Amino acid sequence: MPTGVGALDLPGLAEIRAAHARIADFVHRTPVITCASIDAEVGASLHFKCEHLQKVGAFKARGACNAVFSLPDDVAQRGVVTHSSGNHGAALAWAAARRRIPAWVVMPENAPQVKQDNVRRFGARIRLCAPTVAAREAACAEVERETGAKLVHPFDDPSVIAGQGTAALELIEAVPDLDVVVAPCGGGGLLSGTSIAIGAASARTRVMGAEPANADDAARSFASGRLEPLAGTTTIADGLRTSLSPRTLAAIRAHVAAIRTCSEEGIVRAMRMTFERMKQVVEPSAAVPLAALLEDPAAVRGLRVGVILSGGNVDLDRLPWLPH
Amino acid sequence: MPTGVGALDLPGLAEIRAAHARIADFVHRTPVITCASIDAEVGASLHFKCEHLQKVGAFKARGACNAVFSLPDDVAQRGVVTHSSGNHGAALAWAAARRRIPAWVVMPENAPQVKQDNVRRFGARIRLCAPTVAAREAACAEVERETGAKLVHPFDDPSVIAGQGTAALELIEAVPDLDVVVAPCGGGGLLSGTSIAIGAASARTRVMGAEPANADDAARSFASGRLEPLAGTTTIADGLRTSLSPRTLAAIRAHVAAIRTCSEEGIVRAMRMTFERMKQVVEPSAAVPLAALLEDPAAVRGLRVGVILSGGNVDLDRLPWLPH
Repeated sequence: MPTGVGALDLPGLAEIRAAHARIADFVHRTPVITCASIDAEVGASLHFKCEHLQKVGAFKARGACNAVFSLPDDVAQRGVVTHSSGNHGAALAWAAARRRIPAWVVMPENAPQVKQDNVRRFGARIRLCAPTVAAREAACAEVERETGAKLVHPFDDPSVIAGQGTAALELIEAVPDLDVVVAPCGGGGLLSGTSIAIGAASARTRVMGAEPANADDAARSFASGRLEPLAGTTTIADGLRTSLSPRTLAAIRAHVAAIRTCSEEGIVRAMRMTFERMKQVVEPSAAVPLAALLEDPAAVRGLRVGVILSGGNVDLDRLPWLPH
Repeated sequence: MPTGVGALDLPGLAEIRAAHARIADFVHRTPVITCASIDAEVGASLHFKCEHLQKVGAFKARGACNAVFSLPDDVAQRGVVTHSSGNHGAALAWAAARRRIPAWVVMPENAPQVKQDNVRRFGARIRLCAPTVAAREAACAEVERETGAKLVHPFDDPSVIAGQGTAALELIEAVPDLDVVVAPCGGGGLLSGTSIAIGAASARTRVMGAEPANADDAARSFASGRLEPLAGTTTIADGLRTSLSPRTLAAIRAHVAAIRTCSEEGIVRAMRMTFERMKQVVEPSAAVPLAALLEDPAAVRGLRVGVILSGGNVDLDRLPWLPH
């Protein structure tokens, strides 16, 4: 039964379980790993869900795959479109290729070549636009009008949220007795799906969001109960530079216990620690939950904590601890 | 039954199985991972044994642990000593701490602080010496004389070789139908143990060694049948800058099918590919087998190949693809 909040359509545990069955043949059931030396540092027992090892290198494969495979045949055959130059764009291109339907990805003209290549290698078409929100939305609408392609929003979509929630479902199945689960928060798709899944599947487990202090719109919106604008987005966590939507705010207000923020230095430190101690390559956004825990370990001392490592797509020529 | 070659004492499968039982409570049974995009690149099906996720970040934990726990109580209580500033030094310090016995590690005065710290954090004592082979051996002998500590050589030791062979044993249990297993070769401890284990446990599986062309003493010794000296050691694969011993040469000549070499550029490329596609942090030495496969994929085309990722201890400030 959907856990709609007011008029906003949100998935419930049943939809997340259905999503899990729908995408199971396409995505990885990623491992959960632990690290004794990071546990000692935080003073808690951490269980990292490895979505950086997911298809296309990020949890976004789950939501995109569920959205694409939820479409009725007649809609699907006209294709899908989105406006994300990051992991969701690549994930939608990948998912569309799995269903053998066309995909368009709208990107700003100044998007780095590597991001364009990442979308093209799955056969998606790229539509370049001016680097503004208005131009992006106009280009997207144009593709929809011209082709009949269905828009798959990066996070403001119930089927995307249901897909993202499947990572938490696997995590709580692998480690049933968690006290807390922490997920990073940008637009809130992952955090919404995680909090709905955990809230329904493991009542004793609290869900926490984590975001950069430099992009703390979710923490402020969570506190005030209304959408707070995101002014400057200077964080290195490039996956978390977006604001919540009314839908994700509603889910988060209903199911999340707290949202923690962390400093930019803390993100770099946590990212480097993940490379050095866990030998895992993660992107800055994926290091945000660990950064928040390291900056306030008292919040989880002695607890069993699940942490979602959200992605591993980082520019290895520009690692943030190196001079540039 | 030991597979002694001439007068040289070498472990057999029974000793490797005994080692596996002896160390099982202390080391990780590391995962075996795959990567579709690297498979496509090589044209083979690769199965990576993740020893970079092992205790102390390298397979060396296995050999050191087996050596330490094989000692009779009266010998063990006087402690252990070695002369390796790399992974074996840290592994011996770690293993000694597990058995609660003292350990000394002889290091050149110019050893980087990070390597000294890596040994000290397990409680081992460091004995600094001049940066020459003679000074190192003299310092080691001095510690042995003063303390009665037992020398645990990095590779020229049957119990160390038996311990290193346990990684291959786990690999072939996890993926029984491998055509080839490739391990890097420095002093030859890992390759000896791997080839003895695989030769006895899986007769149809060939074992290949891989080493940098810039440190190709094992390939030359393998071809000629006698120890060929290692002249310059300019390779970035710092774990592979040592030569074989008579013991490891004997094992390798008896059980290894071929030794492949690779270029320095190939090592950097394979290391970066492992970060980028597999999201795994490995040290240059661990990338050598993949580098050899990428430079001569015809040798394994269409085959099922096991690859030992030997370690992940790399200086993240000096990644070799970055300018310095």
